[in-house]
Amino acid sequence: MNSRSEKIFSAVGADVLVTTQDDLRFYLTGFESSFGVVINDGKNAKFYTDSRYLEAAKKNTADGFEVLEYPRGTKLSQLLKDYKKIGVPMERISATEYLSFRDSGFELVDSMSAFRDSMAVKTEDELSRIKAACAATGRAFEELLPQIKEGMTENEVAALLEYLMRRNGASGTSFSTICGFGANASVPHHETGDAKLKFGDIILIDFGCKVGGYCSDCTRTFLFGDDKKHEDFKKAYAHVLEAHMLVKEKFMAGMTGKEGDAIARDCLAKYGLDKYFTHSLGHGIGINIHEYPNLSPNSDDKAFTDGMVFSDEPGVYFEGEFGIRIEDTVTLQGGRVVSLTDSNKDLIVL
Amino acid sequence: MNSRSEKIFSAVGADVLVTTQDDLRFYLTGFESSFGVVINDGKNAKFYTDSRYLEAAKKNTADGFEVLEYPRGTKLSQLLKDYKKIGVPMERISATEYLSFRDSGFELVDSMSAFRDSMAVKTEDELSRIKAACAATGRAFEELLPQIKEGMTENEVAALLEYLMRRNGASGTSFSTICGFGANASVPHHETGDAKLKFGDIILIDFGCKVGGYCSDCTRTFLFGDDKKHEDFKKAYAHVLEAHMLVKEKFMAGMTGKEGDAIARDCLAKYGLDKYFTHSLGHGIGINIHEYPNLSPNSDDKAFTDGMVFSDEPGVYFEGEFGIRIEDTVTLQGGRVVSLTDSNKDLIVL
Repeated sequence: MNSRSEKIFSAVGADVLVTTQDDLRFYLTGFESSFGVVINDGKNAKFYTDSRYLEAAKKNTADGFEVLEYPRGTKLSQLLKDYKKIGVPMERISATEYLSFRDSGFELVDSMSAFRDSMAVKTEDELSRIKAACAATGRAFEELLPQIKEGMTENEVAALLEYLMRRNGASGTSFSTICGFGANASVPHHETGDAKLKFGDIILIDFGCKVGGYCSDCTRTFLFGDDKKHEDFKKAYAHVLEAHMLVKEKFMAGMTGKEGDAIARDCLAKYGLDKYFTHSLGHGIGINIHEYPNLSPNSDDKAFTDGMVFSDEPGVYFEGEFGIRIEDTVTLQGGRVVSLTDSNKDLIVL
Repeated sequence: MNSRSEKIFSAVGADVLVTTQDDLRFYLTGFESSFGVVINDGKNAKFYTDSRYLEAAKKNTADGFEVLEYPRGTKLSQLLKDYKKIGVPMERISATEYLSFRDSGFELVDSMSAFRDSMAVKTEDELSRIKAACAATGRAFEELLPQIKEGMTENEVAALLEYLMRRNGASGTSFSTICGFGANASVPHHETGDAKLKFGDIILIDFGCKVGGYCSDCTRTFLFGDDKKHEDFKKAYAHVLEAHMLVKEKFMAGMTGKEGDAIARDCLAKYGLDKYFTHSLGHGIGINIHEYPNLSPNSDDKAFTDGMVFSDEPGVYFEGEFGIRIEDTVTLQGGRVVSLTDSNKDLIVL
């Protein structure tokens, strides 16, 4: 039996665990594919996939799995006929699937929270993939800076950065790169467009990539030339950076996501900036770019532990004027925050 | 009332249509966002989104919608309290959502097939977006060819092509680019990797991009130099191209997806190649890269009509040796196939 799969099986308390979702299946098997199902009854862990993946899956699936070709034309319920109580991630199966299981006479138990808790704490192998993604992110950003020229569009800068991340070993982006010039930086989810870069523009870029199936996430805000009209921006930048760094200094294992968020929010409040901090401080990062646990005013009371990976991303937005977000991917190690996307965060002026 | 929304409402036969899924909501409203719900009761169509999107949504949402900020902390069921029978896409809501609706006393009706049928037939505006995505795809491929050099990795070629698509107006890819060199081309879903290009290699690239929220899809197979060891490949290439072109010639409005698939499959069978054609001929293309309708041996009996957009992608795969796939995005117009990603498909030898 595979140990990761066994741990989740034990936490759920069903006769069998049935996992069809790409990300959860990858988490269990260590093998990325677009079709398959993992069936684990505490004695045997079987990974069924199709002919396209079979050879590669036999070589690369984690220890403890029997890798099999999914029998064509067979309904999933037939493979489960020896079981009664099946564990599925309820928020990740469809109503159609739910009704099909129910009509086949199965009793359903939710496996989602067991996945969520397990996925939140990264192993050394997972951490090394995230570190590799963070390293590619950092190198690409350094290579991007000298190539940014007046007249380039947001789309061109985003495209170039994505290209550089791939050149540095990424298999792709972990989300669509957000690149906003000038006042566009004031829109937290700005859609990267055809605005052209002008001297004195603020540039906000939120970007990340995947290596070995795991994500990085990073945001940098900087100036394309200093037209000396940016005193308010510079002051606010210093305050957001202070909030960002304070989280790294003060947040630690044993604290809750709500307490983490409050470190940044209280710091910004000192400068009257908290009302411009319109999103939460951070989110878990792993196979998915948004995972458990969150750092927000509404986070639950669970304590953070070593091995969790999340974003530290305070931001302030002045509609129609400018926006600032400073984000690193970080982890907890020896109880303290360690930054994985690190580069000098003093204000860059190109 | 918005006409697209009204048509789907009428087809479903519920008191109200409730749509939260990003792609379906974008289809109704014409506005891309990562949060929102459309509530349409046949008299009023309301589009709720959050503060991040509100200003842009008010400007850019299709006619006939009332655009509102989603009331914070309000459960969806409260917004639906005046209704009994609600239409939702059953295969796109989760079991958790299903149970929540059920426990609130609602009766659920499936809206998925109404969406599927409506989305399959593109309007002029939708077609123009797909054409723009196809044009960017084609231009990027032409710009890529002279930049392919010995020693480049699959990842580098894919990264460069993605960069060029964005430079040509794409907002991003429609799926992760597949690039396989040599024997890697024999794996239909090869994971683009670090293999280096050598003289005489076959190159297979499956790529596509998005413009205005709509996808393109294209595959090209070609040679990086002719080492004179490729007679089998060249013969098979000619046969796959014949199958590809025969679909364009013979498939027409009124035929089924099964009949379309058979045109290619029967053509390859003449050369004993049908057993190497291990996937279906094509799939619908639109907001999503895989949509209804399909062209496969198992397709249903519905007749294709003008305005449908789909792929024509016969392929053959000889494990460990080579693979060939030739794919265009096409549409039906005046009853006949019109290609949207068109470039010379005679075998390219770089």
